[in-house]
Amino acid sequence: MNKISKDASRIPATGDVTIGPRIGGRKVYQPGTLFPDIRVPFRQVDLHPSANEPPVVLYDPSGPYTDPSARIDIALGLPPLRGGWIARRGDAEPVANPRQVLPQDNGGATGAHLAPAFDNSRRTILRARPGRALTQLEYARAGIVTEEMEFVALRENMRRDSAAAVIRDGEDFGASIPDHITPDFVREEVARGRAVIPANINHPEIEPMIIGRNFLVKINANIGNSAVLSHVADEVDKMVWATRWGADTVMDLSTGRNIHSIRDWILRNSPVPIGTVPLYQALEKVGGVAEDLSWEIFRDTLIEQAEQGVDYFTIHAGVRLPFVPMTARRVTGIVSRGGSIMASWCLAHHRESFLYENFAEICEIMRAYDITFSLGDGLRPGSIADANDEAQFAELRTLGELTKVAWDHGCQVMIEGPGHVPMHKIKANMDEQLKHCGEAPFYTLGPLTTDVAPGYDHITSAIGAAMIGWFGTAMLCYVTPKEHLGLPDRDDVKTGVITYKLAAHAADLAKGHPAARLHDDALSRARFEFRWEDQFNLSLDPETARAFHDETLPKEAHKTAHFCSMCGPRFCSMKISQDIRDAAARQNDAEAGMAEMGRRFREQGSVIKVPLSGD
Amino acid sequence: MNKISKDASRIPATGDVTIGPRIGGRKVYQPGTLFPDIRVPFRQVDLHPSANEPPVVLYDPSGPYTDPSARIDIALGLPPLRGGWIARRGDAEPVANPRQVLPQDNGGATGAHLAPAFDNSRRTILRARPGRALTQLEYARAGIVTEEMEFVALRENMRRDSAAAVIRDGEDFGASIPDHITPDFVREEVARGRAVIPANINHPEIEPMIIGRNFLVKINANIGNSAVLSHVADEVDKMVWATRWGADTVMDLSTGRNIHSIRDWILRNSPVPIGTVPLYQALEKVGGVAEDLSWEIFRDTLIEQAEQGVDYFTIHAGVRLPFVPMTARRVTGIVSRGGSIMASWCLAHHRESFLYENFAEICEIMRAYDITFSLGDGLRPGSIADANDEAQFAELRTLGELTKVAWDHGCQVMIEGPGHVPMHKIKANMDEQLKHCGEAPFYTLGPLTTDVAPGYDHITSAIGAAMIGWFGTAMLCYVTPKEHLGLPDRDDVKTGVITYKLAAHAADLAKGHPAARLHDDALSRARFEFRWEDQFNLSLDPETARAFHDETLPKEAHKTAHFCSMCGPRFCSMKISQDIRDAAARQNDAEAGMAEMGRRFREQGSVIKVPLSGD
Repeated sequence: MNKISKDASRIPATGDVTIGPRIGGRKVYQPGTLFPDIRVPFRQVDLHPSANEPPVVLYDPSGPYTDPSARIDIALGLPPLRGGWIARRGDAEPVANPRQVLPQDNGGATGAHLAPAFDNSRRTILRARPGRALTQLEYARAGIVTEEMEFVALRENMRRDSAAAVIRDGEDFGASIPDHITPDFVREEVARGRAVIPANINHPEIEPMIIGRNFLVKINANIGNSAVLSHVADEVDKMVWATRWGADTVMDLSTGRNIHSIRDWILRNSPVPIGTVPLYQALEKVGGVAEDLSWEIFRDTLIEQAEQGVDYFTIHAGVRLPFVPMTARRVTGIVSRGGSIMASWCLAHHRESFLYENFAEICEIMRAYDITFSLGDGLRPGSIADANDEAQFAELRTLGELTKVAWDHGCQVMIEGPGHVPMHKIKANMDEQLKHCGEAPFYTLGPLTTDVAPGYDHITSAIGAAMIGWFGTAMLCYVTPKEHLGLPDRDDVKTGVITYKLAAHAADLAKGHPAARLHDDALSRARFEFRWEDQFNLSLDPETARAFHDETLPKEAHKTAHFCSMCGPRFCSMKISQDIRDAAARQNDAEAGMAEMGRRFREQGSVIKVPLSGD
Repeated sequence: MNKISKDASRIPATGDVTIGPRIGGRKVYQPGTLFPDIRVPFRQVDLHPSANEPPVVLYDPSGPYTDPSARIDIALGLPPLRGGWIARRGDAEPVANPRQVLPQDNGGATGAHLAPAFDNSRRTILRARPGRALTQLEYARAGIVTEEMEFVALRENMRRDSAAAVIRDGEDFGASIPDHITPDFVREEVARGRAVIPANINHPEIEPMIIGRNFLVKINANIGNSAVLSHVADEVDKMVWATRWGADTVMDLSTGRNIHSIRDWILRNSPVPIGTVPLYQALEKVGGVAEDLSWEIFRDTLIEQAEQGVDYFTIHAGVRLPFVPMTARRVTGIVSRGGSIMASWCLAHHRESFLYENFAEICEIMRAYDITFSLGDGLRPGSIADANDEAQFAELRTLGELTKVAWDHGCQVMIEGPGHVPMHKIKANMDEQLKHCGEAPFYTLGPLTTDVAPGYDHITSAIGAAMIGWFGTAMLCYVTPKEHLGLPDRDDVKTGVITYKLAAHAADLAKGHPAARLHDDALSRARFEFRWEDQFNLSLDPETARAFHDETLPKEAHKTAHFCSMCGPRFCSMKISQDIRDAAARQNDAEAGMAEMGRRFREQGSVIKVPLSGD
């Protein structure tokens, strides 16, 4: 094993995370109407005056870190944006005896191995008052539009307020996305379980977001240390970094030591919902021996993480005893860590899963904090050969049963999906999920469409992710280039996030989300008109686009040049197209337009002459 | 403009290109049966003895460069593999008065700007004897199985000779891929125009390959200098480099000066078919002024390149005068360089395209050398907004008409396709192409599924490429990360090739190509059994896979460790799955298997204990 070279006890500093405005856009806020204390953030890209176009407003999950006016101090955490909202609804109360942090919560680490604790002295831990219902689902069913609901409605609209800013062109496979999202539409979607707003009342720092097939497709980034590498500041930085580039939620999949403290630092500084797999920490508490897990230890872990503020829990309650033998003939068996832990437990005790048997109590716990279920697919296929098999679909049907139980308890639910699936078997996953899980949002990992490209699995999976997003998946869990090989570093996190942003956007376009094409069209007009700066600024990754351009044509003047390095200055297809268009615009009659073009070309020549040094 | 820093006159040296075996596999050859002088190359990956599995045989377009026993000298070029085949068929004869190279063929470059000429003193330039038919299509129609046909049949089978090595699982949308490819199947497919074997008789150096929907999906890599950057050795190296990683054909899209000489060096050293766009060079010959183009100049350029040995020509004969005004209202007009050149010419003269009007003569020229048509899509959409519009489909129907004309002349034909297309409009492209072009192979650029990610367009387009490959496209033209921004360098070429290899393979899997899944399954078994070296060697890019693994777990011992960095040594899902499988294998009865597993787990514990240093 390589040595853990870093001192785990170093206190993370604000300088460890990336702060400052993103190049090419500026932070703007839109106030609420129902709730004037709401401020919904966007990234606005102002175009060159020659464009004569309004600014392009983009969805922005990066939080205060990209707002130059925000004061960031990661030792204090982000301001509790939702604190006042939760307080005035009056359905939560302080927990009388919060669970105390135990040494086992951090794997018994001591000394230089022990990560510093976040200072929680200013926090009050909340839970539902007895007899009160405070999940977004319960509010929605009661006809109550919450602050979170108006926030996400405004956020999804991206300030499109005119009918002109609606382009309907797509195949939505039965989704029903309105031209504009209203707070009441959000309420209806949440009420029928077709969308979730993951928002633990103990995570007031988040800017609310919604996950559902009638909203923009979202992406999740996984971070987390592991038994072989460990540092708190790295993980906080990865969280900030992932959201900077567009991650809508972050899962902290830490294992090993210090996971309680790492999670605390992440939660207090995260502007996006945080998901976890509580089973991972429960396993740490029993020394990594799956058979020693118990309902009591798991339950204690749920409370621990609920009080910390985790917004959604992956619960692998669909890995039932009778399904385990179905995996015996698979090429890659059980590849989900949670799935294999539960399979191992079931086999060791020859008993039904304690998650399945105690599911109602899990619901009651999660309901008290409004933690959203992410029902885990512990039997997902780990290879093309195992896709869509008996084990996978048996579990999916169980997740459908459990969805109804969770809904009966007032809990929000989403469903996790695969995995490794060849293209021709992807749609069946979505169809089965819709059929069995009552349109609860689907949340898939990829899927990877081939097994042969380790090192490029962000791409093998982006293909599947774009397709399944098109078919109706609401959130796509990213895959980084390191998948199957190692732990992602900062560059891998960025690559994974941008790759999944483009996959999610391709899905929105194909579904015909009425806001999606505005972005493409604005960028394409900038490209056509050689507004290079606008093209960079509108791209998902302006820095990379600019750097690639500058490798070939570095000088500042070339950013306004009416040519690019592919064709060079002497012949430019875009320029000819503009000539055609200009002529057509002057002539109502196309035939006359062409004759006019012919005259002009003969008179002036059709080339743009730009002097070439050395030419 | 940045200065051209390199001296164009430097003579390329063998050391400029990448030579040597690819890591993780070895070159093997299979002899022909009909033609014993055939040697079909493959990359064979031998697995670890513990696997107890036969070697995995992979398709290998890298040519002699990866054969350690080959002697490479780029000043001499590759051996003329097909020379004897062409000679013994007796349908070709030396050209009495080959066209002489003119200064304008290299853009009038002189001195340090003039690239060195390849020494062609040993070459004999051939064309069809009067009255003889020598295209692969003409042979196929005459019932003749050529050496090229047996070569590609063996190549496509990848040494699968047993019924066991066939996995049928896919949705092929009407393709009809047999379990094994016979030479006569190849002949039939070529005869009906559903596949092409691009193979100019003046390019005897190539290892033949086939493009058609009933064969493995192929990929093309574009290389070429431009007016702003220029060096011969760089382009030869890019060609060798692209084929090393899996490019099945290469297009030389050079513009500017020295393009004749660059092409000569590329052709003489290329083991794969080379495509060009002759219009680019014709435009250079008239100083970049599109209106000054003429049929005579274009015709002369066709002869020039035909005698050099170009295997397929992109001919933009579908850009007809009446279609040009259809592009006036597009967001991005005409983005194809060839398309805009022809549109410009048509407008300047207000005349029908000289390519369209002289199409029959073009066919006669190309037939005499067996140059395959790649009918260019000059009006392809350059943005999501313009996808599937009137201009694009009007041109596609014209390409269908021209296909029949070319077939009547005995020429092989493929059809180029878009471009930028959102996912929901991709299938219509394939359907229209099949409907109008008589199943001639479709050859698409991407398509890109969104416009918003410059810098990542290898990925936006891999999504579309995988899908359209699944639907029936026979060859995918790669897109590199530099698309829209700059000229690809060596790293970009590799990234583009690997990305398209994985997209093509994902397409083969989804189509249910009977050979495709063998590769995935072999890699997944290696993954499941922790045969790390086998996993690396079977991946499309073994170097990157290994490097990513070693970043987290560098030591040699970890390549045999039964864990990876994601879960660490203390709990491994793959190991648990193996335990489940082992138990099931010992027990016929699943229930008994579980009871047995329970006993074992209780006795032994379920974890694998591997000591952690510092743990």
